Amino acid sequence: MEDCVFCKIVRGELPASKVYEDDAVLAFRDIRPQAPVHVLVVPKKHVASLMDLTDEDAALAGRLFAAARAVARQEGVAESGFRFLTNTGPDSGQVVFHLHFHVMGGRRLGAMG
Amino acid sequence: MEDCVFCKIVRGELPASKVYEDDAVLAFRDIRPQAPVHVLVVPKKHVASLMDLTDEDAALAGRLFAAARAVARQEGVAESGFRFLTNTGPDSGQVVFHLHFHVMGGRRLGAMG
Repeated sequence: MEDCVFCKIVRGELPASKVYEDDAVLAFRDIRPQAPVHVLVVPKKHVASLMDLTDEDAALAGRLFAAARAVARQEGVAESGFRFLTNTGPDSGQVVFHLHFHVMGGRRLGAMG
Repeated sequence: MEDCVFCKIVRGELPASKVYEDDAVLAFRDIRPQAPVHVLVVPKKHVASLMDLTDEDAALAGRLFAAARAVARQEGVAESGFRFLTNTGPDSGQVVFHLHFHVMGGRRLGAMG
């Protein structure tokens, strides 16, 4: 997607503080962190949201989970704990329409929303 | 797992308000809902948390995502929006150690934690 900010990060056209990368997934720090650890995990291919993944993307789902585990270990929150979440649509506050999961930890987290 | 409350729900030994079921995944209403729509999506097989899924569970990840989409459509939040999240470990507030994803919607959601 030409104008998608996360596609631009994937293509290297915008800077990001990368913490994990493989052939299918990129993870980088949220520019407005809401916790000591706040990393975004995104598929390299453009998918607007969880609702736009298809059953053919099943393998990608596993890759996103695996990347989340790698990020949690690397960021030191695998034992202390973290939240893994994605926002979909208006009520959730989704602002970038490229599927992204938040990995949040490093402090005691509050309510889920 | 003999004493796991979600395994007991999967086995039919404890009641639950089921909203979706297939061979791999069960979804039921949270008994302490924190939003008008608050459904838990769990794998039928016992896995303690996201950290305990393995790369061999990649297909299961896709099934959990597919179940979330089905729940969102069925509960009427696919368009209005929802949050899809799992808590892992002490800092997150995880209280049941059987992997579960919250599908929360039906109102404007607040901070992510």
